[in-house]
Amino acid sequence: MVTVAVDGNGADLGPDEVAQGASLAAQQGVHVLLFADTSRISSVGAGVELVDSPVSIAKARDPAYAVRSTPEASIVQAARAVADGRAQALVSGGSTGSALAAGLFNLKRDRGIYRPALALPLPRPGVGPLLLLDVGANVICRPEHLVQFAHMGSAFAQAMLGIESPRVALLSNGEEPAKGTPELKEVHERLSGEGGAGLRFMGNIEGTHALGDVVDVVVADGFIGNIALKLIEGVSSQTLHLLRDAAQRSLRAKVGGFLLKPSIQGLREEIDPEVTGGAYMLGLRQIGIVCHGRFTRRGFARAIDVAVRGVEEDVIGRTRAALEEAGALRRPAPQVVSPSGQEARVVGP
Amino acid sequence: MVTVAVDGNGADLGPDEVAQGASLAAQQGVHVLLFADTSRISSVGAGVELVDSPVSIAKARDPAYAVRSTPEASIVQAARAVADGRAQALVSGGSTGSALAAGLFNLKRDRGIYRPALALPLPRPGVGPLLLLDVGANVICRPEHLVQFAHMGSAFAQAMLGIESPRVALLSNGEEPAKGTPELKEVHERLSGEGGAGLRFMGNIEGTHALGDVVDVVVADGFIGNIALKLIEGVSSQTLHLLRDAAQRSLRAKVGGFLLKPSIQGLREEIDPEVTGGAYMLGLRQIGIVCHGRFTRRGFARAIDVAVRGVEEDVIGRTRAALEEAGALRRPAPQVVSPSGQEARVVGP
Repeated sequence: MVTVAVDGNGADLGPDEVAQGASLAAQQGVHVLLFADTSRISSVGAGVELVDSPVSIAKARDPAYAVRSTPEASIVQAARAVADGRAQALVSGGSTGSALAAGLFNLKRDRGIYRPALALPLPRPGVGPLLLLDVGANVICRPEHLVQFAHMGSAFAQAMLGIESPRVALLSNGEEPAKGTPELKEVHERLSGEGGAGLRFMGNIEGTHALGDVVDVVVADGFIGNIALKLIEGVSSQTLHLLRDAAQRSLRAKVGGFLLKPSIQGLREEIDPEVTGGAYMLGLRQIGIVCHGRFTRRGFARAIDVAVRGVEEDVIGRTRAALEEAGALRRPAPQVVSPSGQEARVVGP
Repeated sequence: MVTVAVDGNGADLGPDEVAQGASLAAQQGVHVLLFADTSRISSVGAGVELVDSPVSIAKARDPAYAVRSTPEASIVQAARAVADGRAQALVSGGSTGSALAAGLFNLKRDRGIYRPALALPLPRPGVGPLLLLDVGANVICRPEHLVQFAHMGSAFAQAMLGIESPRVALLSNGEEPAKGTPELKEVHERLSGEGGAGLRFMGNIEGTHALGDVVDVVVADGFIGNIALKLIEGVSSQTLHLLRDAAQRSLRAKVGGFLLKPSIQGLREEIDPEVTGGAYMLGLRQIGIVCHGRFTRRGFARAIDVAVRGVEEDVIGRTRAALEEAGALRRPAPQVVSPSGQEARVVGP
């Protein structure tokens, strides 16, 4: 049976909401190690093991420092449980910063990975999810990082989203290969050549078409990916708000709005980020998922389910194999024998 | 009376649609010099002067080269009419690339401006427009460019959008000053200090809140600004599509959708980019507006109206004054006397 280590302290609704989500997930036959402030938890179902960890660094201003200096923090303990082999995957109820830092320091980068990336499947009703990465782990990316992200995203979409041959594109300011920053053009060139082996690379995509049925994985650096993600959330919620206001303008509109309410509610649920279970830390040696702090128990249960599936589908191994096939792994730094006869290690890129 | 030079060859609906828009605008008391393929124009109203210019470079692959090598092109002729003083403002029916190149080469950068920027007012029903810049003139920007964009956008919003004290923010991946790329952090620091004199600088803004009533001008480099613009267009249209589909799911929903139709149509019109008249080339010595190629006559008429207002409100002079006050103008390159006694001009930044 798969064991998932869960950090319950960062959720907006408190540790009990995470505990109830964990209990729901455990009913499906997963073992959960829940690290949280147990004094704030009412009860848990069978299959959930509580580890009292009242210290939270979810609101730390400098998550990397907090992770290093607070070994007793719930997220650090949960990440260590995965690193030690007591669990096979990590799920965090937030914050993203502390989960990323704890994941990086404890689960560690996988062999040949430059930088882990944060990938988020965005619900697209009628089309299936769109995987956007990096949504915030790396503000600055070099071309080789983005090349890896493309493969990491594609392998993840295959293993976890059930897309046989994911269509991968770069987010840019135009579809032509000559569009974009010099770095992005270099990525385009590499992915169009040998660096794109095994990949269904579609070239550049603009925001106008990113949500349509023309692409499954969109790659950007963490700065632009994060801006894009928040714009998508902001604009879609803004448009629904405008519509609600429009449905107040006349009696006819009010009646129409009333009749449409269940369908709009259905639509809201379909585009709710909870349905995809959270953001995925790709490029680590084990599976890590970060939920949005505002998730309810349903979202946490879903994230734990997805983590189990990631273990069973060996998403880590499949990602590694895809990167190997494309020659996109970071090469180990060459061993140089120094004049004094001692081995010196050249610092890699 | 103000004269506006209009390029009519790039519009998706053809030169006649631009001619009808120009005729509508002329009814309000503006003189229009219309450069277009007159064989494709049915008629024009009083106040519109046709100049037969059948050559179009709207679809040129390299607009800068096309502008330099095709003096007879309609957009080049229109831009030259403004440069020569035969008209006071330029309106182009597209493409953006050729209009930008023609504007830059003929209208020229204003004194002290590093780079002209393309600014687009996005309609926000119930709030008033949001000015987004740069939406695509400069893929790569240095901090001093973005500092100027902030002032250029603010002065434009004051003069043209009627916002007394525009709230200006930088598009970033978090609200804290420490968020963003190193360049963006530098811009934040400058605008928070003396470089922000005269500016109502609100700091960073995320996409989630950019469309809310917390900011009037959003500044980004042309790569990110263009991606953001297209995401906003794509997501808002995608959400309305999803809603239309949702209104097909049951009889109740169908009736509701039917009753809501006029309100949704009203909303569509309110967020139609035509209502704001197009994108503005800021930082030139004269006013230049680029319409979207898919505009109808209404949009072209609106753009010409807005160009007239820009002349009357002296938006160029007011932008210059704002930049001067904040010390954000590019300093003239120092005159260096070379050893040979000849004056040499140091290349500025």
